[in-house]
Amino acid sequence: MQVVHPSLRMFGIRTPLIRPGDNIVDILIDALEKQGVELQDNDILVIAESPLATSENRLVRLEDVEPSKKAEELALEYQLDPREMELILQECDEIFGGVPGAALTITDGTLSPNAGIDSSNAPEGYVVLLPDDPQGSAEVIRRDIEKRCRCHVGVIVGDSRTQPLRLGCVGIALGSSGIVPVEDVRGSVDLFAKEMKITRKAVADNLVSAAQLLMGEAGESIPAVLIRGAPVQTTKESVGMPLFSPDECMYYSNIRKQ
Amino acid sequence: MQVVHPSLRMFGIRTPLIRPGDNIVDILIDALEKQGVELQDNDILVIAESPLATSENRLVRLEDVEPSKKAEELALEYQLDPREMELILQECDEIFGGVPGAALTITDGTLSPNAGIDSSNAPEGYVVLLPDDPQGSAEVIRRDIEKRCRCHVGVIVGDSRTQPLRLGCVGIALGSSGIVPVEDVRGSVDLFAKEMKITRKAVADNLVSAAQLLMGEAGESIPAVLIRGAPVQTTKESVGMPLFSPDECMYYSNIRKQ
Repeated sequence: MQVVHPSLRMFGIRTPLIRPGDNIVDILIDALEKQGVELQDNDILVIAESPLATSENRLVRLEDVEPSKKAEELALEYQLDPREMELILQECDEIFGGVPGAALTITDGTLSPNAGIDSSNAPEGYVVLLPDDPQGSAEVIRRDIEKRCRCHVGVIVGDSRTQPLRLGCVGIALGSSGIVPVEDVRGSVDLFAKEMKITRKAVADNLVSAAQLLMGEAGESIPAVLIRGAPVQTTKESVGMPLFSPDECMYYSNIRKQ
Repeated sequence: MQVVHPSLRMFGIRTPLIRPGDNIVDILIDALEKQGVELQDNDILVIAESPLATSENRLVRLEDVEPSKKAEELALEYQLDPREMELILQECDEIFGGVPGAALTITDGTLSPNAGIDSSNAPEGYVVLLPDDPQGSAEVIRRDIEKRCRCHVGVIVGDSRTQPLRLGCVGIALGSSGIVPVEDVRGSVDLFAKEMKITRKAVADNLVSAAQLLMGEAGESIPAVLIRGAPVQTTKESVGMPLFSPDECMYYSNIRKQ
C-alpha cells in the first residue's frame, strides 16, 4: 500500500486596486490568468473582506455620518471618532466593552472590534463596513466562478481578528461556500483508538489564517489567496458558518456585559 | 520589473507513534528522509504539542494522582475527573470559570481549556500535560536540526484552541524559534498610503493554523508539518512569544474572574 503524505500549495493573487462597483470575480479570474494559474477542482479561494466590501459599495464617507448622543458618549469612552462609533452602533448587535481604540462588539454573531469597521485600506476620510452578507457573497462568487471555470471551488470571505490575551491578528471566516467550514470530528478515534475529546475543527478559520501568511495586512495588493490540495470536506450544498450556542462557550459565560 | 507572486508549500510529516523518551528530531528527520523531502533554508516546522510532550515524558497516569478537596469541588462544578482537575490546578496560573467539560485557565500567560491537559492521543488512563517549556523545546529542536541539516529553520510548537463564540478549534503557537512570531506592522502603510491601524500579525499562530489543515486532530500520525516559502521574518536570535499587556486586551478587561 502506498502511503500518501498530505501536502498543499498556496498562491497569492495580486490584483489592481479594487474600487467600488468592481466585479471581484472578473478581477480574480483576470489576475489568475496573468499569473498563469488555472483553477482546478476543489481549489479554495480566500478573499479578504475589505476589498470585497469595497467592491460591494460598503465605503462610507465619515463626513456624511451624524453621530447620536450615545455615539458621542461611547466615542469618548473608547477614544474613537464619534462618527465611526455611530456606524459601529448601527452595524453591531451588541457592545460588550472595549479598550482605547476598540469597542468589543458582537456583529452577525461574531465577536469583533468596532463591528469590523476598518479605516485601513479605505480612502482618506472613509471607512469600509463589513460586507453586508459575507455568506451570501461567498455563495454568489462561488457559483459565478464555477460557471465560468467549470470546476468545483470553495470560496471563503476572511477577516482579521485579535484573540483574547494574545498579541497579533489571526484569520477568521465571515462566510464560506463549497466547503464544510467546521468539521465535526466527534466519533473519530485517536492514536489509541479512544474517542476524540476535541470535537470540531474550524477549517474555514484555519484556511483564512493560512491565507493571511501571503496576504499581509498593509498595501500589498494581495486581496485573495488560492489554496490547492487542502484535505477538507467539499460540498455542493449551501453550508454556512454554523451557529454557536453561547451556553457551550467557556469564554462567553465569563464575558460580562456592560 | 518582474512581479513576484508569493506562494508557499506545506508537507505533512507522517511518523510512527511517538513514545515517552523518543528523540523527536531523530523521528522527524527520519520521516522527512523517507518522504524524500530535504530541509532547505527558512523551512518552518510546526510540531504538535501532544506528541512533543509525550516524547518529553509528560504523560501522567491518573491513578497516581490524589485530588485535593478544592479539585473535588471544581471537578463537580465543571464535570471533570477530579484527578484531571487536580492536575489542572497544579499546571495553571489561574482559573476563570468554565463550562461542563472545560475549565477556562490561564497557563503560562495563555488562555486555554483545562490548562492544555489532553486525554486524547494518550494511552487509556493517562493524560498528556503541555510540554514543560514549549519555548525552550522549540529552541533546542531548532538548534539540533540546524546542526544536523546545515540550514536555518524555524520551529514552532503548536496547540489547538477554541475561540470565543466560535465553533471549532484553531491553531495557537506555544513556543517558536527561528522566526519572528508576532510581526509588528505599525508604521507600514495601506493601499492609500495611510498608516495601518492593525498593528501586529500573529504569524506563528497563523502558521500553526495552516499546519492544522494537514495535521488533523485524530489518529492520523501527522505530528508535524513542514511549511516552505512563507514570507515571514526569520531570525537567528532567540525571540520567544511576546508578553501581552492585559490592559491592551479588549477581551481580558471584560472577563470576570470567579
